[in-house]
Amino acid sequence: MASTTVGSVIPCKAAVAWEAGKPLVIEQVEVAPPKAMEVRVKIKYTSLCHTDLYFWEAKGQTPLFPRIFGHEAAGIVESVGEGVTDLQVGDHVLPVFTGECMECAHCKSEESNMCDLLRINTDRGVMINDGKTRFSKNGSPIYHFLGTSTFSEYTVAHVGCLAKINKAAPLDKICVLSCGISTGLGATLNVAKPKKGSSVAIFGLGAVGLAAAEGARIAGASRIIGVDLNSNRFEEAKKFGVTEFVNPKDHDRPVQEVIAEMTNGGVDRSVECTGNIKAMISAFECVHDGWGVAVLVGVPNKDAMFMTKPVNFLTERTLRGTFFGNYKPRTDLPSVVDMYMRKELEVEKFITHRVPFSEINKAFDYMLKGEGLRCIISMDD
Amino acid sequence: MASTTVGSVIPCKAAVAWEAGKPLVIEQVEVAPPKAMEVRVKIKYTSLCHTDLYFWEAKGQTPLFPRIFGHEAAGIVESVGEGVTDLQVGDHVLPVFTGECMECAHCKSEESNMCDLLRINTDRGVMINDGKTRFSKNGSPIYHFLGTSTFSEYTVAHVGCLAKINKAAPLDKICVLSCGISTGLGATLNVAKPKKGSSVAIFGLGAVGLAAAEGARIAGASRIIGVDLNSNRFEEAKKFGVTEFVNPKDHDRPVQEVIAEMTNGGVDRSVECTGNIKAMISAFECVHDGWGVAVLVGVPNKDAMFMTKPVNFLTERTLRGTFFGNYKPRTDLPSVVDMYMRKELEVEKFITHRVPFSEINKAFDYMLKGEGLRCIISMDD
Repeated sequence: MASTTVGSVIPCKAAVAWEAGKPLVIEQVEVAPPKAMEVRVKIKYTSLCHTDLYFWEAKGQTPLFPRIFGHEAAGIVESVGEGVTDLQVGDHVLPVFTGECMECAHCKSEESNMCDLLRINTDRGVMINDGKTRFSKNGSPIYHFLGTSTFSEYTVAHVGCLAKINKAAPLDKICVLSCGISTGLGATLNVAKPKKGSSVAIFGLGAVGLAAAEGARIAGASRIIGVDLNSNRFEEAKKFGVTEFVNPKDHDRPVQEVIAEMTNGGVDRSVECTGNIKAMISAFECVHDGWGVAVLVGVPNKDAMFMTKPVNFLTERTLRGTFFGNYKPRTDLPSVVDMYMRKELEVEKFITHRVPFSEINKAFDYMLKGEGLRCIISMDD
Repeated sequence: MASTTVGSVIPCKAAVAWEAGKPLVIEQVEVAPPKAMEVRVKIKYTSLCHTDLYFWEAKGQTPLFPRIFGHEAAGIVESVGEGVTDLQVGDHVLPVFTGECMECAHCKSEESNMCDLLRINTDRGVMINDGKTRFSKNGSPIYHFLGTSTFSEYTVAHVGCLAKINKAAPLDKICVLSCGISTGLGATLNVAKPKKGSSVAIFGLGAVGLAAAEGARIAGASRIIGVDLNSNRFEEAKKFGVTEFVNPKDHDRPVQEVIAEMTNGGVDRSVECTGNIKAMISAFECVHDGWGVAVLVGVPNKDAMFMTKPVNFLTERTLRGTFFGNYKPRTDLPSVVDMYMRKELEVEKFITHRVPFSEINKAFDYMLKGEGLRCIISMDD
């Protein structure tokens, strides 16, 4: 395969979003060869994440269409552009919506994963190399999304947005590690860092929150309290280590008070995965004084304001935010895949649906209905 | 000495506050022997801290008088009550306004110093053993303050509020380590934890803030930015390692923006020592995304509300509060004294005034005028 396509435009199928909120259309598109520091990847499996849905719906946004969405995926390197030395044809990779240039202050910091060069940019629809797209149809450009655009049989990404992973890992499963699951898992394992035997509250039991719970389970937390407005999610959550459930609607006082009472003063750690500002405040105020750490993951409304009395900090609580679970995409994601290979991390339970590429719009339907966690889209089917 | 006083009431001099805001009066008082888990201490040196002033002024408080203030001090154990095994007659000690019982969940946690039994209680004027005072004059009780009441030649404290220190340490200097200096120092060394070569902003250049700066200097910070509304404090601050100064009044935009511009995006760490809510918000928002950590030390107005946009957290900033610099009084204070003995920590520069006990009201005058940092009161003079 490689010998016939390297250096050439590849015609292939992609699911194009022509306008906001309208079903994607499988089109024949042209994918240009990778330029300097770029890599062309044959996508094998992709899944749908809320961020795709959000920018596809484009409510209240300046829409950028036609566009190829998709950022949670796994694939195989088809060819590499000039200057790419870290990847070669045939390598297995996870494309990531945010990158790691390995040269900026953030990449050089042990603590940050917010690369200056390749940090997530939801507005940009072109490659940073030349400000142009690598996708086109009949000569007209089709915009990229998050530098990944994985709803296509082939895509082009900056080398800094591709994590090289163990070739033995099954791509139809570990594709979900390229975004949401790692975000929740890392929020717990890298940022909240619960100790063995500790108590952890998880706000929001969607895929990210359940991945945060999975992190708490892996860390050996003895109590994992799930908090969600939808009580139907509680049964499913048990598979992810959740031991107790609180629905704020069932109580006539703030949920932080309910949790403090359940835990003799507060949980050791909390992880907020809803983006709801009230949940953020509750997640902070429900941690124990003296040692409690709350971690914010969910992205709120632009106008939301976090508010709390300073004494809640002065009594030795910590509040931290995280982005992509503090994982550095290239440096750290391979180890997340390895956690799965060692059977420490259970990925299968996040995968509730599978559809062939031709039925990609079904994945959107499932998510709009709030049905299931992750729907794997097989590019080859 | 010990042989004649152990087990007896000791008549001695104490500076009694008879009513709010009125000069203290040196009185002959009686100090009862220590009861179970208590220790009677001969105070050698004490100093004045803002907390004494605040509760002496008693503005907007339910006043508790007559009372013996004082909580920053050094002394020698005169006798011990039943059950006290950790201290013996002749031991040198620092009384501390908050304690360490060594048995509660906080004391057993590596992270907390907020002992359940002996946590600071500004309202309590009696001993926890029996709810009574050990001070009296002509049979009438005189209330304690913070469990320390060091403005007296002899005082009685719970054993959990006394740190046993190196006998070689000069009590007339290290007495200041019993409260404010350790609070600021620990905020930086134990909580902000700046790395060598990093940048640190200190909000408020009073004694606590300068101790936080001293912590940054000891940690090897290369830039220490002092922030204060009083530019007169800047010259003095240089002795504590402060390298640059910002007076928010000199700028027509938020000081966090000024600091971000000075530091290419923000400081690595900040420590807030004013208690002003605007300063708290600025201290948080002036740290760099990706790795910035802000630490709150200053105690705000009860009605103050901390407010910030959640994105400031989500871009990987951390906000933590601290209490007494996260030092566990009995476990950790001896090592702070040892830092001074090894000449790593410079204590002399905090001591700007000295008065004999008979002139204790002068120390209040200095503080009310904002003159100097610490005034040492010699009990023997």
